[in-house]
Amino acid sequence: MHKTRIYYQDTDAGGVVYFANYLRFFEKSWFDLLLSIGISLSEWEKAGTFFIVKRNLLDLIKPVRYGEEIQVTTTISSVGRASFVMHHLVSRDGEATTKGETEMVCVDGRGRPRRIPDEFRSKLLACQKNIAPTK
Amino acid sequence: MHKTRIYYQDTDAGGVVYFANYLRFFEKSWFDLLLSIGISLSEWEKAGTFFIVKRNLLDLIKPVRYGEEIQVTTTISSVGRASFVMHHLVSRDGEATTKGETEMVCVDGRGRPRRIPDEFRSKLLACQKNIAPTK
Amino acid sequence: MHKTRIYYQDTDAGGVVYFANYLRFFEKSWFDLLLSIGISLSEWEKAGTFFIVKRNLLDLIKPVRYGEEIQVTTTISSVGRASFVMHHLVSRDGEATTKGETEMVCVDGRGRPRRIPDEFRSKLLACQKNIAPTK
Amino acid sequence: MHKTRIYYQDTDAGGVVYFANYLRFFEKSWFDLLLSIGISLSEWEKAGTFFIVKRNLLDLIKPVRYGEEIQVTTTISSVGRASFVMHHLVSRDGEATTKGETEMVCVDGRGRPRRIPDEFRSKLLACQKNIAPTK
Repeated sequence: MHKTRIYYQDTDAGGVVYFANYLRFFEKSWFDLLLSIGISLSEWEKAGTFFIVKRNLLDLIKPVRYGEEIQVTTTISSVGRASFVMHHLVSRDGEATTKGETEMVCVDGRGRPRRIPDEFRSKLLACQKNIAPTK
Repeated sequence: MHKTRIYYQDTDAGGVVYFANYLRFFEKSWFDLLLSIGISLSEWEKAGTFFIVKRNLLDLIKPVRYGEEIQVTTTISSVGRASFVMHHLVSRDGEATTKGETEMVCVDGRGRPRRIPDEFRSKLLACQKNIAPTK
Repeated sequence: MHKTRIYYQDTDAGGVVYFANYLRFFEKSWFDLLLSIGISLSEWEKAGTFFIVKRNLLDLIKPVRYGEEIQVTTTISSVGRASFVMHHLVSRDGEATTKGETEMVCVDGRGRPRRIPDEFRSKLLACQKNIAPTK
Repeated sequence: MHKTRIYYQDTDAGGVVYFANYLRFFEKSWFDLLLSIGISLSEWEKAGTFFIVKRNLLDLIKPVRYGEEIQVTTTISSVGRASFVMHHLVSRDGEATTKGETEMVCVDGRGRPRRIPDEFRSKLLACQKNIAPTK
């Protein structure tokens, strides 16, 4: 879970959060979620295992404005051999404002797909939740 | 069509374009496409008609690196009463690297959905192409 | 004071924080500092009083990398009739990595300079610290 | 020289270009300037010579709004043994809106300062202009 206030830098001239910036919130949320279950993406990188975004969905339900506070909740919805999928829910005062979905793929230092290391994968599986897919 | 070089600001420590930045390229591409068919989004805003992103899909096929040049081609794939959908194709030296899809909704100054003005809609329809949906 | 981890979104292909992103950290730090002394910039805006950046200095001492944690400390160094100046110090494990200085000007809804409201100004003065200028 | 339109992504809820984004315009302008005099920063990096920002000044004179077009002109104002300084001028319809100054330092792959290679330095010197310093 990642909590943040909305600063000027997150908004655009329409007065609301710029749509691409939700993907930045998602990254912070998944990095922190993985860290909380014992996975440091930056440490895995130093050891030569990288995770890159393969696919991302974004669904904007309600606008969010400058000065408001949001909460991003990320859950791991499926874990494959070389990839996994996360769901993101952004809420403000308990009301859903934005949803998202991200598929990450495991690659080596040259960008070639590889199996998710067992230690990493077992932590993902322990954390996984079954979620109805975002339509 | 929007052409750009990849600068440091577009990349991340993984050495490639940061995934969320593709949505920034998409915005530039659709703004310029609409301008080329006689629609200035910023002028329509001054007149009280806004278009906000409702949904966005992003599909990363190949990484793009610092110093490389890309071309973003946006096409209008469907036009409804209050919304329209665009497809985006990013290519480097003629090779597809990234795909995307954006649904925009027409709203008034208070964010309430409204019909796309006839003048705007007829320009979209004249420019529309039928495209196989991104899976 | 604002604490954050460094995420991919903050970095560039050089492997370190992209220089312009320090200004984003500065904004978060000053917004939070002002909030902590009873000034909500977003609430003042709703009441028609805006503060815009007039000038910014940035001094990079040491690079900061993906996954590291930084702390940004902002202090108010001088308060004038229509403007005020803040200093920013970014540190990692107690070591200074980056310094900055921002001058903000008070404007009305049309962007015309105006006096800082007394209530706002007295809170700034109570918080002000004398600091040797960044060379 | 770098020309661009102002898109939503460049602005904030104040309706104008977000101050940190001028540094992004500066980067595009200096990358393109250097390329025009035969220096590709990304190619030099592949050969192990890096240039990092050491210091940046930003002076905002007039706000710039969504949909407007700006032109960024960068000039090389001084060249030292291991660093060089550039000035940036942003204008809209011939009117100066923003000024900036950036000092770049030459480093090796480990971030240690090194002399600017002769070939690089002679191209900078040929392009250098004497400019009154930004106050």
